[in-house]
Parts: sequence; C-alpha cells; structure tokens
Amino acid sequence: MNSLALSTDLYELTMMAGYVTAGLTPRASFELYVRDLPRHRSFLVAAGLEQALDYLEALRFSEADIEHARSLPALQSVRGDFFDDYLRHFRFTGDVWAVEEGTPVFPPAPLLRVTAPLPEAQLVETALLAHVGFETSVASRAARVVRAAAGRAVVEFGARRAHGIEAGVLAARAAFVAGCAATSSVEAGRRFGIPVSGTMAHSWVTSFPDEITAFRAYAEVFGDRAVLLLDTYDTLAAARSIVASGLRPQAVRLDSGNLLALSRRVRAILDEGGLAGTQIILSGDLDEWRIEEIVRSGAPVDAFGVGAALSTASDAPSLGAIYKLVEIERNGADVPIMKRSVGKETRPGRKQVWRIVDGGMAIEDVIELADETIALPGVRPLLTRVMAGGKRVSPSPAAAGLRDRHRAALAELPEAVRRLEDPAPYRVRFGSALGGLLEQRR
Amino acid sequence: MNSLALSTDLYELTMMAGYVTAGLTPRASFELYVRDLPRHRSFLVAAGLEQALDYLEALRFSEADIEHARSLPALQSVRGDFFDDYLRHFRFTGDVWAVEEGTPVFPPAPLLRVTAPLPEAQLVETALLAHVGFETSVASRAARVVRAAAGRAVVEFGARRAHGIEAGVLAARAAFVAGCAATSSVEAGRRFGIPVSGTMAHSWVTSFPDEITAFRAYAEVFGDRAVLLLDTYDTLAAARSIVASGLRPQAVRLDSGNLLALSRRVRAILDEGGLAGTQIILSGDLDEWRIEEIVRSGAPVDAFGVGAALSTASDAPSLGAIYKLVEIERNGADVPIMKRSVGKETRPGRKQVWRIVDGGMAIEDVIELADETIALPGVRPLLTRVMAGGKRVSPSPAAAGLRDRHRAALAELPEAVRRLEDPAPYRVRFGSALGGLLEQRR
Repeated sequence: MNSLALSTDLYELTMMAGYVTAGLTPRASFELYVRDLPRHRSFLVAAGLEQALDYLEALRFSEADIEHARSLPALQSVRGDFFDDYLRHFRFTGDVWAVEEGTPVFPPAPLLRVTAPLPEAQLVETALLAHVGFETSVASRAARVVRAAAGRAVVEFGARRAHGIEAGVLAARAAFVAGCAATSSVEAGRRFGIPVSGTMAHSWVTSFPDEITAFRAYAEVFGDRAVLLLDTYDTLAAARSIVASGLRPQAVRLDSGNLLALSRRVRAILDEGGLAGTQIILSGDLDEWRIEEIVRSGAPVDAFGVGAALSTASDAPSLGAIYKLVEIERNGADVPIMKRSVGKETRPGRKQVWRIVDGGMAIEDVIELADETIALPGVRPLLTRVMAGGKRVSPSPAAAGLRDRHRAALAELPEAVRRLEDPAPYRVRFGSALGGLLEQRR
Repeated sequence: MNSLALSTDLYELTMMAGYVTAGLTPRASFELYVRDLPRHRSFLVAAGLEQALDYLEALRFSEADIEHARSLPALQSVRGDFFDDYLRHFRFTGDVWAVEEGTPVFPPAPLLRVTAPLPEAQLVETALLAHVGFETSVASRAARVVRAAAGRAVVEFGARRAHGIEAGVLAARAAFVAGCAATSSVEAGRRFGIPVSGTMAHSWVTSFPDEITAFRAYAEVFGDRAVLLLDTYDTLAAARSIVASGLRPQAVRLDSGNLLALSRRVRAILDEGGLAGTQIILSGDLDEWRIEEIVRSGAPVDAFGVGAALSTASDAPSLGAIYKLVEIERNGADVPIMKRSVGKETRPGRKQVWRIVDGGMAIEDVIELADETIALPGVRPLLTRVMAGGKRVSPSPAAAGLRDRHRAALAELPEAVRRLEDPAPYRVRFGSALGGLLEQRR
C-alpha cells in the first residue's frame, strides 16, 4: 500500500527526470552531515544507517508508482521514456560509505557518503536524511540519558509519544544502540532483537474494584515477574498494602508525585516488609536532567522508564542534517563541488574522518579528502564502505553488537566532553589537503 | 514485514493476557485527551483519526505474531488458550467516538473515546496515542504557520526532517488539513489526494558547470513550470542572469541569507526585467515567527516552504496525550472511573464536548457527561460516533474536505484566541453533571 519510491520530495523526482532528459548521469558523490551540534549536545551518536541501507536495497518503481509519476502535473513535460524505461528499470546501484551506527561523531563530519549515477544519488536524498537524521538525534539523546542514569537501567518507553507507530519502533532501536537496556515496544524487540520490558498501566488498577485486588490478579498471572504500579491512588498506601498482602513483586513503578521523596519512603516500606529484592522503577516525564538530579540525591532507584525525551528527541527533534553534492565526474575526471550560500557554505570533495586516539583516548577528529591518508599511529578512519554496487558488503550487524561498540567508542571520549553540563568542546579540524582545496575554491 | 499487532507497548499485551486470564472482559470506555496546551498554543487542531481508524480496522494477530507473543519471557506464565484462541480470533469490535479532524480543540476535552471489551480497548492505547498525538501536534503547528502567512501559500517541505519516511507522509496530511496549500511529499499526494509542489535543490545547480546552464537545462525540460533556486552562489546575480537569459520561470526560491532584504531586491530585478509574473518562494528554517516578521515587513513573497517546524512540530514534538479508563461495566451497570495520582488526576465517566456558538462565534466549550444533553440554541456536540462494532460508520473523508471544514471551524474562534502572540484563553468548563460526579468521587 505504501510506496517507498514515491516517499520522496517531488523535486527529487523532477530533478531525476531532468538529469535523465539532459543526459547528465555522471558519477556523483553526496555527503550527509549535520552542520552544528544542537544545544546541550557535545557529540552526536550516528544511527539510522541500517534503515537507510534497507531503503536503498528495496528501492523500485512499481507499475502503479510509474503511472502515478506519469500523472503528476509537474512531470507532464517529461518524455515518455523516462517513465517507460528509466523508472521501470531503476535500481540503486551506488556505493555507500558510512560511520558505524553507535559511533560518537562531531559536526560537520560526514555521517554517510553516496557515490552513484547522479539521478540515483539525488532521488534518495529525502529518505536518507529522514532516517539518519531522526535516528541520530534519538541515539544522541539516549547517550545523555543513559549517562545520567549512571549505571541504572534506562528503558525506552516512548512508543506512544513517537511520530506514528513506525517512528516508535525506529526510536527504540536507536535508543538501544546508544545504551538503553530495553524497550517497551514489542515490535522493536521482534524486529531488532532488543530486550522488551513492561509494567502495568493505571487502567489495570482502575479496572478492578480495589487496588489490592488488581495487584493480586496481576500476580496470579505473572507471578514473580509482576511489576506493580503504585501511584493510582496513594503511592505509600499501595506500597504498604503490597507488604501486608504477602505479594512479592519483581518491582514497583512510581509515575507521579515527588519521585525523589517517594522512592525513599517506598524503599523503606519494602525493606521493612521483607521485600528488599523488589526493585523500584521511576517514570513520568523524565529526561537526563531529572534523572541526574534523582541519581545525585542518592534516591534508591533501580531503573528509569523514559518516553518522549527519547522517542521524539524532544530537545532537538530535528538535527537539520543536509545532503550535499561534493564531487561530480566531468570529462572523465572527478571534480570537487561546493556551494557558497550565505551561512550555508559547503565543503568540496569526498571526505574521510580520521579519529586520532592516543593512549585509548580520542584527541581530535580530522576531516580530510578521502584520497588522502593520515598515517599516524592510533589513527582510524570512521567511514567504511558499507554498500557496493547497490548491495550491502556485509550482513546487517545486530543491534546488541552495535551497542557494545558504541560503549567502547564512547569510553574513548574525554570525560570533559561526555559530561552533561557545560561539556568541553571536542576538537575537529580540516586536514591540510581539504583546507587547501577550500582556500583555492573560495 | 512489520507487525501492526505487535507495534504496541509490552504492557498492553501483558495486561490483555491478564484481563483475559482473569475473565475480566467487561465493556470499558477509554478517553484520549491532552492535559494542557503546550507553550505558544492557544488551541489544538485534531488530527490522526483516519490513521487510528485504519489501525483499528486492520488489527489482527498473524500466526507469526502469535508465535512471537508466545515466545516472550513476560508471557511465559500465560495459559495457552490466550494465544491459541483469544489472539487468533482477535478483532477490534468496539465503538469509537471522535472529534472530526481539523476541528480546533481545547484541553482537557477528549479527542477520542473508545468503548470496547476491556482487553481490546487496552491493547490499542499505544497506537492511538501515537497517531492522534503526533498528527494533532503537527496540525496545531500548521494552523499557526498558515495564519502567519496571512493568505500566502504555505507548502509543507518537511519530509527530510520527519521522524522516518512514514512520519513525513503523515505530517504532510496533518499540515494540509490545517491549511497548508500543498506538500513536497509525492507519497502524501498519492495517498491522500494532496497537491504536491516542488522546486529544485542546490545540487541541480552545482551539477552543471555554471548556474545559467543549470537554469536553462531545467527550463528546457519543465518550461514555464520551472522554479529556479537562486542562492547557490549569489542570489542577486542569479536573479539578474535569469532576466538576461530570457528565461521565464514560474517562480524563484530563496533559501538563505537575509530573506527579507533579498526578496525585495529580487522582486525589483524581476519586475524591471519584465518578469512581474514570476513568483518568489522563501524557505530555510522558517516558522510562524519568522514568517510573521517577513509578512509584516511587507516583503514581496508569494509562498513559504516550511520544513521541520511542521513535520516535527518542533516546538511541541510531543503533546503528552493520555488515554484513560473512564467507565467500566460492573454487574451490568456502567461505573465511572477515575485515578487520583498527584497532578495527574483523571475525570470519571464518558464525556461529550459541547461547543457553544453565538452569532457564528464560539464562546465556550462545555465538557459534560455523555448521557447529558445541553439543549441550547447554537450548541453542537464535537464528538460523533465514527466506528461501530469495529467498522467505520461512514467512508473516509477526503483531506480536502477536512481542510475546508477546518477553515470554517477556525473562523468561529474569536480573533483574540487565534492570534499568534499572547493569545486570549478560550473558556472550557465542566458541565454540572460531570462537576457533581467529580465532587462526589473526590
């Protein structure tokens, strides 16, 4: 029912038609990057590559898509063979270089580079930006929330706040890659092999004539896996009635009120009642700032459930990622390309990002032309080829593996860069070959 | 590949299993609403109902879904007949009452009410919140942006900023219902019958050896439909070279720099060059505030392209909508339900919202128990039954029809409520029967 090929901006289709009509189908390279860090972020965490590659591999124009394209007023003046021949046989045949998902990255370093015949590289702009921009913003926020939790589990609870059903599933994946322990999204668990976790809603409690009956009914079905929600009527009374009932829930959840004070009092009630093993989960409009405050106060919390802050990346719902032509083949030679729009200048040439690591600690990133090599010890390139001729070069990595590598790469960043408040900037500079080209082109 | 039934929070599934196991399947009513207006909004515009109803009608558990559910650790203790019988035959069989999409609404009025057997009404919570919450936020923002444009066309350009491909398509629809003139999303155009519109990207210009060659090549294919982008190198020089070239583009687009000053100078160049009919489109990080400033200054602008502000509802990416049990059948009687969580109290009973209109002007909304009738002249109920027994009661309305009715309903609101800056609050009160019930339950 939904068309992948038509899920693009109209101008991608008109430009593609224009390139094909003009016979302009040279090899072209586009880079996807973010110009500036959003407020409160000292780094980004790359994500969304997997979905971008799925899109590129699946991209086809069905007969229905072609008929729809043909019917568009904007394409009325386009010759028939664009529809009958070009669209019908369209495949994405290009190469993709990208930063591995989970890697901390610093603008304006490219996250992804496409090299393909110009019309193909153009068409895919909208979808690549949407996938990589969105998931990178969620992953970047998740890394902050996970840091604030200081070792306590963060469970992504944001499906209901996400921008539609599918966005929730994708957000769950990005949040997990950046360190969340689990998600409430069953579909994200199924599709990506992420642990799923859940508790109960207020409606479970209010469906029964009284609270303890509701708790007992739940425990009867779910036994010692039960997580009971305490704040439907009175949080402390609920904790006391659990102790009195003899129930032994795995955990309790607090979703409203003064979470800091209540968690202490609930912990005391549980401990005195012989339920020292029952964990406490907090939720309710949490973000990295609230969590840091709760953790710093020493509140007895075992896990946090976080919703909109993760699934909508609420403080930076758009990163403003861009996708720019950086090189094009002319007369057999690859020519570096830039634009000079005020405040939106771009940097020419295919680029690589080199991370300089010394003694296990990342010192700086150098953005350099891709054909240059920075031969220093402890230097590694962040972009690797992930797609060749329109096919993935290796199987999709498991989300859990990406999460492990995220943790390792994050640990390389200086502590001052990682801290939540007033983080130190990380040094990113242009290599000498790129710098020279930039000077020459201005 | 994607499972609709599993695109839900784990706790919806565990609670559903719990209700079924406990034999607790009474008729239950849940209401979906927003507690408070986000900052800078004086009203919301209801949207997302169509997607919510699509979801409810399509909801099934495939054999693969059932096997996955059976494999979940959280459901290990659930009896086999829940999977073999209940999930296999699951359909949504309930009734839905809802506010028509495009209608201005005021928290905490319900946007939607579900009445169904408890396990069914519970399962659908996550998806209904995601659809209605997201699209309502986009539509609400769009109404503000459209107002700021004061009659000039607003084209939704946000697909690349949206939270994945599907979110972009849904955002385009919500923005259109709330008054946008068109979208750049080809798929949104196809699926919902929305006009599509597009220009060209900087990459079109930089793909050619020089700018005027790029413009000529585009005009050769698209003739007088061509919209040329001026700011790749130098906006004014581009305008002059178009005049000199004899091209007669339909419009030009400015995407960077001082849009206000540049639009004036470009207009003068075009007019002096005999291109008075060529329109000017502005884009680039626009929102209602920037647009209002540009319009107020009298800049010669014909249309605005707006991206992230619309497709991510960037100032309020989550409305925090909630879905609460308000009534349940016990011993044959419908019992009103509330919770009393601190700061998150809910209001019992199935409700209706009555809009009191006098002389074509909306004066106040009254939230009253659904079984009460407010019999006053000029009063109309906002919630109507849109689904009965799991089926829509009437065909899906066209987006264009919703947009017309949105405009009419918006025009009923007092000007002071609609203004962008420091809007007057609109009066919402509880009817006497609901008020009485609330007192009695506290």
